[in-house]
Amino acid sequence: MPSYKAPVDDVIFLLTDVLDIDRHRELPGFEDVSRQTLRAILEEGGRICAEKLLPLNASGDREGCRRAEDGSVATPKGFKAAYEAYREGGWIGLPVPAEYGGMGLPATLNAVMQEFVTSANFAFGMYPGLTQGAMAALLVHGSQEQKATYIPKMAAGEWSGTMNLTEPHCGTDLGLLRTRAAPQPDGSYAITGQKIFISAGEHDLAENIVHLVLARIEGAPAGTKGISLFVCPKFIPDAEGRPGRRNALSCGKIEEKMGIHANATCVMDYDGATAWLVGEANKGLAAMFVMMNEARLAVGIQGLGIGEVAYQNAAAYARDRLQGRALTGPKAPDKPADPIIVHPDVRRTLMTIRALTEAGRALALATALQADLYRRAPDEKVRQAADDRLGLMTPVLKAMLTDYGFTHAVNAQQVLGGHGYIAEWGMEQFVRDARITMIYEGANGIQALDLVGRKLPRDGGRAMMAFLAEVNGFVRENEADARMGPYVAPLKASVGHLQQATMWFMQNAIARPDHAGAGSADYLHLLGLVALGHMWGLMARAALARSEEPAMQAKLVTGRFFAERLLPETGMRLARITAGADSVMALPAEMF
Amino acid sequence: MPSYKAPVDDVIFLLTDVLDIDRHRELPGFEDVSRQTLRAILEEGGRICAEKLLPLNASGDREGCRRAEDGSVATPKGFKAAYEAYREGGWIGLPVPAEYGGMGLPATLNAVMQEFVTSANFAFGMYPGLTQGAMAALLVHGSQEQKATYIPKMAAGEWSGTMNLTEPHCGTDLGLLRTRAAPQPDGSYAITGQKIFISAGEHDLAENIVHLVLARIEGAPAGTKGISLFVCPKFIPDAEGRPGRRNALSCGKIEEKMGIHANATCVMDYDGATAWLVGEANKGLAAMFVMMNEARLAVGIQGLGIGEVAYQNAAAYARDRLQGRALTGPKAPDKPADPIIVHPDVRRTLMTIRALTEAGRALALATALQADLYRRAPDEKVRQAADDRLGLMTPVLKAMLTDYGFTHAVNAQQVLGGHGYIAEWGMEQFVRDARITMIYEGANGIQALDLVGRKLPRDGGRAMMAFLAEVNGFVRENEADARMGPYVAPLKASVGHLQQATMWFMQNAIARPDHAGAGSADYLHLLGLVALGHMWGLMARAALARSEEPAMQAKLVTGRFFAERLLPETGMRLARITAGADSVMALPAEMF
Repeated sequence: MPSYKAPVDDVIFLLTDVLDIDRHRELPGFEDVSRQTLRAILEEGGRICAEKLLPLNASGDREGCRRAEDGSVATPKGFKAAYEAYREGGWIGLPVPAEYGGMGLPATLNAVMQEFVTSANFAFGMYPGLTQGAMAALLVHGSQEQKATYIPKMAAGEWSGTMNLTEPHCGTDLGLLRTRAAPQPDGSYAITGQKIFISAGEHDLAENIVHLVLARIEGAPAGTKGISLFVCPKFIPDAEGRPGRRNALSCGKIEEKMGIHANATCVMDYDGATAWLVGEANKGLAAMFVMMNEARLAVGIQGLGIGEVAYQNAAAYARDRLQGRALTGPKAPDKPADPIIVHPDVRRTLMTIRALTEAGRALALATALQADLYRRAPDEKVRQAADDRLGLMTPVLKAMLTDYGFTHAVNAQQVLGGHGYIAEWGMEQFVRDARITMIYEGANGIQALDLVGRKLPRDGGRAMMAFLAEVNGFVRENEADARMGPYVAPLKASVGHLQQATMWFMQNAIARPDHAGAGSADYLHLLGLVALGHMWGLMARAALARSEEPAMQAKLVTGRFFAERLLPETGMRLARITAGADSVMALPAEMF
Repeated sequence: MPSYKAPVDDVIFLLTDVLDIDRHRELPGFEDVSRQTLRAILEEGGRICAEKLLPLNASGDREGCRRAEDGSVATPKGFKAAYEAYREGGWIGLPVPAEYGGMGLPATLNAVMQEFVTSANFAFGMYPGLTQGAMAALLVHGSQEQKATYIPKMAAGEWSGTMNLTEPHCGTDLGLLRTRAAPQPDGSYAITGQKIFISAGEHDLAENIVHLVLARIEGAPAGTKGISLFVCPKFIPDAEGRPGRRNALSCGKIEEKMGIHANATCVMDYDGATAWLVGEANKGLAAMFVMMNEARLAVGIQGLGIGEVAYQNAAAYARDRLQGRALTGPKAPDKPADPIIVHPDVRRTLMTIRALTEAGRALALATALQADLYRRAPDEKVRQAADDRLGLMTPVLKAMLTDYGFTHAVNAQQVLGGHGYIAEWGMEQFVRDARITMIYEGANGIQALDLVGRKLPRDGGRAMMAFLAEVNGFVRENEADARMGPYVAPLKASVGHLQQATMWFMQNAIARPDHAGAGSADYLHLLGLVALGHMWGLMARAALARSEEPAMQAKLVTGRFFAERLLPETGMRLARITAGADSVMALPAEMF
């Protein structure tokens, strides 16, 4: 069975040495995040993940969720007790304001916890994760009454949440959605329609499930401008706010999936279910986007979590497994063979995962910190800059970290050879679970389109210019320092590629949007690599200050590996982008 | 359920227009491979795959193989009848000499059929595939009596074959193997030990199973120099050559795997089983290598087959699925949305699979043709050149085509969004099945080491020099032709990268072998890309001769896509190789 140890030291290094969150002590929620409190919180979070959640990961995958004739859904053995422990620890309400019973801690810390939970038990983590997403939408768009009714119960984990968007004929293109909402005399709506792929749609962990549902009010315009957001609880809260009458909605089926078997992915049937409008009529998509941005960042972090746990188990195997001899002569002459960690290609695999995961974690936390600044900073300029960066980086983090998380799981599995392919070692589950992260919450191709089509041109390219200025500023400040050379010189080349690609889009894609579409995925990865390179620069600078410590020496080596071996990819990405759309678009559809 | 149509036209284009196999009419087995016979054979082969094997692919995955208490193994429903049809078609004996009841056709045609079978039903294809591998070893190393006893039965598919190498503590490093062979007075041996991961180890498709087993004769030297190859049938042939006494071997367990569920992957227990030496004592590894080379090429082709079928289904979905509008305005204004094939990023995904699969097929067939020349050409020089090329390209094809096959399956799955993740559409099975190809028959990292450590330096680099000379010659012959420019100019740059990388190894890796190890995977892919680029050059030249045909126009576009978007990867590979081993090897093992 796989093992897992939460990377608490690395997180503390990032939050304190690299991101210096102490600077933000004046912000609400940041008052108490000293190095010591941080460690206490994170170690407790890591402990519950390793002790309560990890042991259920493989058994949950084997057992899956089961739907009974009456439409009720049973989660795998042990999930209910683990959920109780998690709930009671207050982890679900961690980022929720204290007035609703939450801990009011920074989103940045919540991001850390999302990573730990995913590493330990991805499918389990989706239940609290969806509740947090639904709370985020209600906190921003819900009425006072809605917030008072739902948030405290959800923050405590007594009730859970879901997002209902997809229908059989519409996923990406929500303008096609058909679920309808009929206004009722009492101000509520009756929802009718079918939703598919609803994660945590029905289960036995919480006493109530709060569904957020996109639907079209009768008579509303066609397309995306006629979509509204509704809150539609499984049990309608009674006068005391307790679960009352059963609503007219049910789980019609659990999907058979490649992975995340312990999470109930439901077909949800709404049959005139009572619901209430959240926010304004016909503005549902915008309201849902609040939830989707939170969710996209969280999905990127899921990629990170899978990469981390896959790495830990591949590294442990590589240190233990005796097979063959080092190219440079026996390293364990007293044993029948050397551990496979002596082989350069095994190390290359592990170093690649490590270099991308450590920088990915830095970027995820730096971006989560922007989310906190956006919500909590008193200065309007700071809030705007944070919003810009958050908007720019959300699609990058979602797509890049999930592409990497999956690839890392595959490569970590490869380290185990045949043992990686059988269920016993748990590595193949990481691969199957990780695969969904590239698809849900907007498939990665959609993230790339969001980046080049929306985030890049917005406000005259302000967000991108600010990012380029920051990276270029970092290069200028550090290029004279010889110790920083190995990190800064390759970064300078790569940020140059990014500037060239951006310029190429400006000169070509406005006249011909297909040029942007054909280069979108490469541009996302190019921007992502530069952002990771910047993070490695920041980490190297922080590590140099404590370079006598073995952990910091490892950082410096890993950063060099990244700069030498992974950053050169930006040149290839640029070449692809500037190849343009011609050969991509030339074939008639019937020739595919 | 996925659909499949064998790419017969593309294969005929490759065999006739590109590879001109008609040139080899004087070789045994090539006499009758005119364009027309080819088409008849391939269409019949494609038909049986699509009609008999494809319909069992998903059900076989769901059902899997079941081991009964008595150690017998049942294959999924329908497999026995499909196997009978396949066997009766003579497909298993296709490349076997007529004197043993085979068709005596070229290995090149067998390679085509291996692709088709894998596309239709990967797990099924492994049963005849392993029989062919075992026959290959017996044909080269078996005694006359062994060949007469086993080959006709195996070629007819009445008996099947296996390879028994791996043990719990030894996979890559066969020198560690412990299974022992005790000489018996009658000249036979008694085999005792446990083998794991034995594909098709036990099943109900054939009346007998011929196990080829690696074991150590009592008193033999330790390490790889004390390993011998044995033939160890499930039922010992009686005087009439029919299955007689049950041998002391059995399936102890079926492994639970990520995919290829319909193939029985067995733990095999040998308990003093009667066996006979194949070839010389203590030379078993060399004998097994014959089988392994065949098998490695076949595994590369499995990667190809999975990529092809995944592509076909993703393309069909992309043409049908209505979602969103083209960036350049509606393309199907009469419909609620455009088919997603209008989106550049979807096309980029499909074009990438297509460009690599078409060139991969060309390279696989060109290499299989070298195998035929090596075995059948009268001229010693031709045989030597063929052997060189085969040795050089076997690890490249195995690793590159399986890396691609898996990646293609993943990317094709991505085209279907959420529908790709659920079992219903069949795409996730392709991913799970494809994954094993990167692991078995020598994990891809081992292939890379075989390439840089063995194949590259062998005979003073003769094979590599011949390859470079051929590609450079092609560039020189064609660079003056403007129509060939888009294919030749990028190839020229890439072959330059390959030469630089080769030179770098010569200058650095002899003194420090870790430099070769650290760059081995990148070198394999660099060489592979150049070889694919060369194939695109050959295909473009052939297509230009018939450029009025839509299929040839599609070839020319696809080749341009490859040259513009995929060949630039060689620069990145070179940068990684020349980064060397320093940052790869720097961390102490305990820091991983």
